[in-house]
Amino acid sequence: MTLPAGVHVRVVGTGLIGASIGLALTRTGAVVSLEDPSTTACALARDLGAGVLAAEVQQAPALVVVAAPPDAVATVVVRELAAWPEAVVTDVASVKLAVLGEVTALGGDLRRYVGSHPMAGRERSGAIAAQADLFEGRSWVVAPGPAAEEAAVATVLDLALAVGAAPTRMTPADHDAAVAAVSHVPQIAASLVAARLRELPDSAVALAGQGIRDVTRIAASDPMMWTQILAGNAPALRTVLEDLAVDLDAVLQAVRALDAGARGGGDGQGARGVLARAVASGNAGHARIPGKHGSAPTAYATVTVLVPDEPGALGRLFHDVGDAGINLEDLHLEHGIGAPVGLAELAVVPAAAELLTSALLQRGWRVHD
Amino acid sequence: MTLPAGVHVRVVGTGLIGASIGLALTRTGAVVSLEDPSTTACALARDLGAGVLAAEVQQAPALVVVAAPPDAVATVVVRELAAWPEAVVTDVASVKLAVLGEVTALGGDLRRYVGSHPMAGRERSGAIAAQADLFEGRSWVVAPGPAAEEAAVATVLDLALAVGAAPTRMTPADHDAAVAAVSHVPQIAASLVAARLRELPDSAVALAGQGIRDVTRIAASDPMMWTQILAGNAPALRTVLEDLAVDLDAVLQAVRALDAGARGGGDGQGARGVLARAVASGNAGHARIPGKHGSAPTAYATVTVLVPDEPGALGRLFHDVGDAGINLEDLHLEHGIGAPVGLAELAVVPAAAELLTSALLQRGWRVHD
Repeated sequence: MTLPAGVHVRVVGTGLIGASIGLALTRTGAVVSLEDPSTTACALARDLGAGVLAAEVQQAPALVVVAAPPDAVATVVVRELAAWPEAVVTDVASVKLAVLGEVTALGGDLRRYVGSHPMAGRERSGAIAAQADLFEGRSWVVAPGPAAEEAAVATVLDLALAVGAAPTRMTPADHDAAVAAVSHVPQIAASLVAARLRELPDSAVALAGQGIRDVTRIAASDPMMWTQILAGNAPALRTVLEDLAVDLDAVLQAVRALDAGARGGGDGQGARGVLARAVASGNAGHARIPGKHGSAPTAYATVTVLVPDEPGALGRLFHDVGDAGINLEDLHLEHGIGAPVGLAELAVVPAAAELLTSALLQRGWRVHD
Repeated sequence: MTLPAGVHVRVVGTGLIGASIGLALTRTGAVVSLEDPSTTACALARDLGAGVLAAEVQQAPALVVVAAPPDAVATVVVRELAAWPEAVVTDVASVKLAVLGEVTALGGDLRRYVGSHPMAGRERSGAIAAQADLFEGRSWVVAPGPAAEEAAVATVLDLALAVGAAPTRMTPADHDAAVAAVSHVPQIAASLVAARLRELPDSAVALAGQGIRDVTRIAASDPMMWTQILAGNAPALRTVLEDLAVDLDAVLQAVRALDAGARGGGDGQGARGVLARAVASGNAGHARIPGKHGSAPTAYATVTVLVPDEPGALGRLFHDVGDAGINLEDLHLEHGIGAPVGLAELAVVPAAAELLTSALLQRGWRVHD
């Protein structure tokens, strides 16, 4: 199913997400009307092809997509529900229970409101960064409240499909608990680990390897955006953070006992068991992360290749990988300190590792599998 | 400088690190003699080309490299110092202050002992996984105690250079503090975040995106190895972990205040400031991580390309990147759920982004810069 041809979708808020939805829907033949408190922003989105100005469309919208900043979402949703009494209204905020609560408190028609959350974004913001394919292949959570009508839910599921996303239906509470664990707590952990580097001597920071680079990559995120997201999901976030704090405290107590032992204050009995269990629990949790396309995780084999640091070297490498007919599942680049080579770690299905290794060796690469 | 031609280096412990050192030194023309409590392991390393059995060499070693398990290192170092009264002795354990303390307590000759730590490893262990180029381009910390003679320090620096590593001289305490922050605490954070996924419903884990994948990649590490590493560095680790716990507690208190506010118990004044500062501090710390080859971090531009999930697609992409004469600085692959495409994020110097985008568009790729 998808949205009916020629359907009128009203997009309120023409930032990155709203304008991208407009671009994607316009391509499918929908009539997209655009509204934004900033007439300049709205005109820009129109000029980029995201739709037409709202004043140019006479018919009432069948669907309203509210893509306003998190703090304003509920107010706009309620206003749109009142303005278009036949329309389904959805929003795209990254927390769902708080918005539903506010819409309820403000007296919005809960039969026609269906919150949703496209799991897509960019480092850049605004309509100028919009992309028609922003949602392709991404999850789009559809999180109706208990009073939502099934026809309204179906319309929002169709919206997700229309822009190329993979819709997933969840309750607002389940959504918020899920993103607390898979998105918000990882963000906090990355920020806190990265913050430890601020006061470190240069010589110490120079020892940073691929591990901390991966752990802290998302620590470069925008503080203002994340403050709104984290604050909006405080109830679900609190639970996961409290569990994390308990685990961290157990590790800290074990490290304190071992430290005291190193200074002659006991042998830290049991402390090593706490550390081993913490790492083993991490193994078990990590193993649950799905592989590509939502399939069960697969243990890939890694083939490591030395790559000279020169233009085209990676290109030659991947050309040779392609020539061998092998599909890369994942890859990491690692750069050593003070040497003109990088290491490319190529992840492939185990059955392909030997073939890949011999193919690359034949082509003159320095390889270890 | 490097080790003199034909120098005799004795390697005690023929696991991954010891055997890799043997392979690398043998290639440089050094005489490498191998010793291991397991005669089978020792013979395997010999058969792989890491050196000769110790009994076959008559001359005394000029340098002894102790690559024993962390728990046994100090005892072996002291035994070797006594057995070879003219030799310099180093070890390769990943913590340095504890080993120096034990060697001191056991009465080892501290003038000839120079601890070190090659920042290299693999997921696999044992001589069978050894590689002559394991250390190429990697940091190798040389961490002499205060009583070490400069000639002994120079010998260990030369060892690092001989195997292709980039030696860095630090005190044992500075080394341990550095790896606590850049390696051990990130490991703990990754494990604790991943552990939160154990009890999550499948539908929630399915929302995992690239962020949590990066944060938790190293959570797949070996619990027994990491227990030894973390326990061995308890004094330095304690300090960094305590700072982390204080920061986490501040975030947790802010989230609790906002949660109470959401339930009508106050407005959580000041709480948003705590969250924003935590993320901003992470920005500042992350910005200190060096770019490739130890240079200052550079802000790269990112060009995102849709890649069909089929053999050779990435190969074609990187072939085309190479054709355009552009050097990739970094890259990430991201796989959406439920769609047969992946996203390749290509990081290049900002000046090259426009050229890369137009080159790839010309070749038929779907690109956003």
